Amino acid sequence: MKQSLGANTLVGATTVWVVGTYDREGRPNMMTAAWGGVCCSDPPCIGVSLRKATYSHAAIVERKAFTVSIPPAGHVKETDIVGIASGRNTDKWQTTNLTPERSQLVDAPYVAEFPLVLECRLLHTLELGLHTRFIGQVADVKAETSVLDKDGDLDIEKVDPFFYIVGKRAYYRIGPYLGKAHSIGAELGKRRG
Amino acid sequence: MKQSLGANTLVGATTVWVVGTYDREGRPNMMTAAWGGVCCSDPPCIGVSLRKATYSHAAIVERKAFTVSIPPAGHVKETDIVGIASGRNTDKWQTTNLTPERSQLVDAPYVAEFPLVLECRLLHTLELGLHTRFIGQVADVKAETSVLDKDGDLDIEKVDPFFYIVGKRAYYRIGPYLGKAHSIGAELGKRRG
Repeated sequence: MKQSLGANTLVGATTVWVVGTYDREGRPNMMTAAWGGVCCSDPPCIGVSLRKATYSHAAIVERKAFTVSIPPAGHVKETDIVGIASGRNTDKWQTTNLTPERSQLVDAPYVAEFPLVLECRLLHTLELGLHTRFIGQVADVKAETSVLDKDGDLDIEKVDPFFYIVGKRAYYRIGPYLGKAHSIGAELGKRRG
Repeated sequence: MKQSLGANTLVGATTVWVVGTYDREGRPNMMTAAWGGVCCSDPPCIGVSLRKATYSHAAIVERKAFTVSIPPAGHVKETDIVGIASGRNTDKWQTTNLTPERSQLVDAPYVAEFPLVLECRLLHTLELGLHTRFIGQVADVKAETSVLDKDGDLDIEKVDPFFYIVGKRAYYRIGPYLGKAHSIGAELGKRRG
């Protein structure tokens, strides 16, 4: 039996991304975003939603660029504090011992220590209410060679991402392999379809 | 050392959602979407990106509503075939033995067997290229009482969601608890900040 939980954003798990920006003075900043995701395959676009009150919001409006760095589980503490503190009055790079790496493609820095990064140029800005949705076109994806398999593809277990649980405000790691997409369900189509 | 993987959507893991709609004739349909996420906390909004070629795309444009049902790992095969077949020429409910439940709030059905569902009214439509981004305002979230803990909050381990790995096209389950958000990193701020 289903029970109403009200009008809210209780989707279960969301991805955890760290958004990198330069402010007006060129200082690098980063913040953690749980409201992010892919928006389009071609052109490749990803979106992040930021509250207007955040320091990173003004930076994206100013610079029209941002990066997304995927934090590994080994950096969960650093990622968490990046989501608590504000770049307005904190140097989060010093707090976390993480390093801003200047993108050669877009006007934003990414986190040098994180294994997977996406460099984006701002394409659309959508005001939704408390949050603004920034949609960026991906100029390039970069990955540490240590998280690639022998075929040069991303090995998700080496990337070791983690997730944010809405409501519970908890982080969970990625779990075991479940099956091959666009394949594991095909037998149902044959049997019953 | 980081290596370029090109301009694409290789973000690692994404959430797996099943989008429910009625077509022009009132027939229920569902499709699997890996390009979804929360877009705004207030008003509560979630977004899904669908290719124009999909049958569900036309249904959302027509009905201005959709639901999102979060599939549990135990239904990975059903979820996968829902992402392979098209509602244009397949009755996916019959193929999967899943049941469309009519929302009392919005003009769309959700998956009765899935533990967590969000009912949405279409708020924004954004053409991005291959994909259209539909942003819906959440009218209600409903959960099976069996996935709630003693405080009435969602127990993510009982919801048992899974993720889609971009590039590898694989599904992975959710893993172990990693820490408390907005808390586990606070010690870094105290020590170094």
